[in-house]
Amino acid sequence: MLENLKKLVCRLNLELPKNNLVTTTSGNVSARDPKTGYVVIKPSGVNYAELRPSLMSIVDMEGNIVEGKLKPSVDTKTHLYIYRHRQDVNGIVHTHSSYATSFAALGKPIPVYLIAIAYEFGGPIPVGEYIPIGDEEIGKEILRSIGKSCAILMKKHGVFTIGPTPESALRKAIVLEDVAKTVHLALLKGKPEEIPPEEVEKVARIYKEKYGQKNQGEMYETNNC
Amino acid sequence: MLENLKKLVCRLNLELPKNNLVTTTSGNVSARDPKTGYVVIKPSGVNYAELRPSLMSIVDMEGNIVEGKLKPSVDTKTHLYIYRHRQDVNGIVHTHSSYATSFAALGKPIPVYLIAIAYEFGGPIPVGEYIPIGDEEIGKEILRSIGKSCAILMKKHGVFTIGPTPESALRKAIVLEDVAKTVHLALLKGKPEEIPPEEVEKVARIYKEKYGQKNQGEMYETNNC
Amino acid sequence: MLENLKKLVCRLNLELPKNNLVTTTSGNVSARDPKTGYVVIKPSGVNYAELRPSLMSIVDMEGNIVEGKLKPSVDTKTHLYIYRHRQDVNGIVHTHSSYATSFAALGKPIPVYLIAIAYEFGGPIPVGEYIPIGDEEIGKEILRSIGKSCAILMKKHGVFTIGPTPESALRKAIVLEDVAKTVHLALLKGKPEEIPPEEVEKVARIYKEKYGQKNQGEMYETNNC
Amino acid sequence: MLENLKKLVCRLNLELPKNNLVTTTSGNVSARDPKTGYVVIKPSGVNYAELRPSLMSIVDMEGNIVEGKLKPSVDTKTHLYIYRHRQDVNGIVHTHSSYATSFAALGKPIPVYLIAIAYEFGGPIPVGEYIPIGDEEIGKEILRSIGKSCAILMKKHGVFTIGPTPESALRKAIVLEDVAKTVHLALLKGKPEEIPPEEVEKVARIYKEKYGQKNQGEMYETNNC
Repeated sequence: MLENLKKLVCRLNLELPKNNLVTTTSGNVSARDPKTGYVVIKPSGVNYAELRPSLMSIVDMEGNIVEGKLKPSVDTKTHLYIYRHRQDVNGIVHTHSSYATSFAALGKPIPVYLIAIAYEFGGPIPVGEYIPIGDEEIGKEILRSIGKSCAILMKKHGVFTIGPTPESALRKAIVLEDVAKTVHLALLKGKPEEIPPEEVEKVARIYKEKYGQKNQGEMYETNNC
Repeated sequence: MLENLKKLVCRLNLELPKNNLVTTTSGNVSARDPKTGYVVIKPSGVNYAELRPSLMSIVDMEGNIVEGKLKPSVDTKTHLYIYRHRQDVNGIVHTHSSYATSFAALGKPIPVYLIAIAYEFGGPIPVGEYIPIGDEEIGKEILRSIGKSCAILMKKHGVFTIGPTPESALRKAIVLEDVAKTVHLALLKGKPEEIPPEEVEKVARIYKEKYGQKNQGEMYETNNC
Repeated sequence: MLENLKKLVCRLNLELPKNNLVTTTSGNVSARDPKTGYVVIKPSGVNYAELRPSLMSIVDMEGNIVEGKLKPSVDTKTHLYIYRHRQDVNGIVHTHSSYATSFAALGKPIPVYLIAIAYEFGGPIPVGEYIPIGDEEIGKEILRSIGKSCAILMKKHGVFTIGPTPESALRKAIVLEDVAKTVHLALLKGKPEEIPPEEVEKVARIYKEKYGQKNQGEMYETNNC
Repeated sequence: MLENLKKLVCRLNLELPKNNLVTTTSGNVSARDPKTGYVVIKPSGVNYAELRPSLMSIVDMEGNIVEGKLKPSVDTKTHLYIYRHRQDVNGIVHTHSSYATSFAALGKPIPVYLIAIAYEFGGPIPVGEYIPIGDEEIGKEILRSIGKSCAILMKKHGVFTIGPTPESALRKAIVLEDVAKTVHLALLKGKPEEIPPEEVEKVARIYKEKYGQKNQGEMYETNNC
């Protein structure tokens, strides 16, 4: 069942190592099927080189396995908590990408030092409290701290991004690492100034209106957060 | 129409991710056809993996779409402003490449600390003022600040490079990121000294005379700025 | 003989350059065959592009060549010393991967600043004393300093990881470089706080129980340390 | 003529971008044919993607073109000066690789902070004076400052490595960038201590005796400096 979504989720998981966001088996992408409410997610501890659509796990909102002979990601309960409490979210990505996670290690948010942060994230990237153990607890803290953002740094842990589609969440995970790198490099050489919030909002609004191919079919749609 | 130029612009856009200058859909390359005055540019928000020559946008000097079913890059007006005011420019590249943009984030120019900067750019890489919103305004600020350079860092934003051909502008975008990285690394370990302007000029002149294959056909021509 | 193990060791050696852990001919992976007690290891100074299963060296516990026309790695005696004294170890990886080795250059351990360090390593990455020359001496110092860890930084030298299987040792070498990078980046921007030891232990225990595919056949087994 | 050497030099030049030592058209590898005394070198300003053995330039010791329709590298006179004055050198590599060049930008040598530097280079990597213009002058300064090393950082410029074969010079260029990166990373986190010269010498001697496949045919020979 959900063959197309399994293919998509498999392909998006493979984008994680291609974009240097993960090593070995770390990181995962999931997607919710809006019709059934089922969630497709990467199986736990499987190397990216071995991922196949047929290996994807399908779980229901309570975490019961609906299909898949492999155990789903250990982060499944975190994903499910978010899906249950955010009907607008149909895709979630989790990584430990280096530059973004170096901010998470310090519990430091990423301020809006770049126009790309303004229009991709609409504000600073927030940081969630340190949650050592517990799956739903991580989901709870993500939602408590993420606000209107589509990305969050979890202290001493890594990155979660969310979106209306899994492609959108993936895009944000890639862009987050990119801007985190640029901001990191800038911080080593000086003190960048923040773009003021009212300007951030204006930039984000204009970008949302103008960017991408709104009426050209799914393939060319830009996935905004 | 302009089939060869669309192929070229498509191929040069694909060089952006290959050279790690962009992620997702960011960045763009355009070229002006000297005969018709039309400009070929990347469509907005399309993933690099999906770019095809047939998807390129062709616009006239006022931004009217001449060919292409997709919306052209949101940066099109910036490109057109430059083309209208600089007849010597037939290629423009825009990126947010990490090292160069980390200087842009701080509004810091890149001084001539390396011979490669002297002969590739003929002087320091200048910085343009921060322009939050506005397409022509960005083009205007680029031309106000770029001087005789072929590359500029736009504050809190990213990189623009220009050239007599799009290949030349691309080359400069690649080299800029490369020297920005080297200068960044040097700045973390000490205080490099600038090469004096008169020496920079001499190096640039000699390089222009000696480098590359001047009379061996287009394929081996070096694209200088 | 040991055709499958030679194939495996060859393949795992090739993972070193793929994961950017080595350049030229540096680094090596070995594995012990639990039945014969023989060790399969990379030949000395052979480029990764030229490695073939048939070129692998097989040595006995005393270092006598059992099969293979090429000289085994210069680090063979170090590997053998570890195998002789740690019956639980059947795989060893050695690299000079940049971020991890930058801690080794300073003789600095990597503290548990990230949950990933807690669950992958169960504690800080220790540092062994500087041993300029001597093969068995390096093995001796590794075992003296590695404690319960599966990874060690050898001062002014590089990284050794060990595991119940060579896949496990490789995984740890990859993850070590990844977390070393993140910790390095964090240290340049602030002072991360350590996760307290009792919490590290709890995280490591839970992860060991929950992560991966315990009863799904070898292919999907997670290699823990 | 020299078909095999042209193939080899072409292939080794292509290793430069593969190992991330160059961008666009920068960098070059040359080799001297010990029989004829002719030198095969990369043509000037040709993109790596377009390099073919048939495009290589062959020049004599005075720089006269013996074969090749393209102009040889602008660095040819520098290479020839070295070949004329060092009969033991049959291969030369020039790059602007980022980490090594960041030391060159500051005129800082790379001390022996790592065992790999001891056994690959036998001492610190020296720095040559800044030579803004002049081809033979650069060769002269390289030989004045390189001492017994096989690698030198030219101030504000880049890297030159030499060797008894072009493979050896290439290996040193790759390893130099690797150790320069590790040393750079270490310097940002602390003060590494140098390995004392007498120990460096001992390590280098032992390594020379033991490393690689001395009598196994050319393919598996290690190229030492």
